[in-house]
Amino acid sequence: MDLRFDHNGLITVVVQDAETGLVLMVAWANEIAIQQTLDTGFATFWSRSRKELWRKGSTSGNTMQITQIHVDCDADTLLYRVRPAGPACHTGNTTCFYRTLEEALAEETL
Amino acid sequence: MDLRFDHNGLITVVVQDAETGLVLMVAWANEIAIQQTLDTGFATFWSRSRKELWRKGSTSGNTMQITQIHVDCDADTLLYRVRPAGPACHTGNTTCFYRTLEEALAEETL
Repeated sequence: MDLRFDHNGLITVVVQDAETGLVLMVAWANEIAIQQTLDTGFATFWSRSRKELWRKGSTSGNTMQITQIHVDCDADTLLYRVRPAGPACHTGNTTCFYRTLEEALAEETL
Repeated sequence: MDLRFDHNGLITVVVQDAETGLVLMVAWANEIAIQQTLDTGFATFWSRSRKELWRKGSTSGNTMQITQIHVDCDADTLLYRVRPAGPACHTGNTTCFYRTLEEALAEETL
């Protein structure tokens, strides 16, 4: 089978801590990012804001070592199970999903 | 803060089993789907293929009761932690991520 990329050539990637089960982040990957992930064993994404390959942790040091990659039934989403070297979130939180929806909606700004 | 919907008015939703930690599926929601989820306590999505609201389990019976909703740091992805009434996947598998990438790429067809 082939992976199903969207019209921008991207596929959604859910990242989960292989040990704790915590969902850490969601990012996007193109074919090159996936190939680099497979070649290096570390999570590489496509940054939609910076429009460039983004090897997670290349500046922060918070890399994510891949333990397993799963694909969903219709092949348009990947699940990276990883061993993170540090916090997944740029805020310093372990996971990007550190707030409940209720908490977030109560905040005045991001 | 406000949720950040994409140009189609949708936001990515990761669904995780609250008890087992298994990532079950990824789907999309618009504002109405989120409101219905909050109002009913059961996961409702927007079906991009059928272009309609999709209350998960309305035909299969495999509903997903919400235990908690989290939002990520940049507010463009939700995480629904749920109690599933049955398999998440239309294939009958517990999770849509039932195959590794390696297994999936080795398959001739979906």
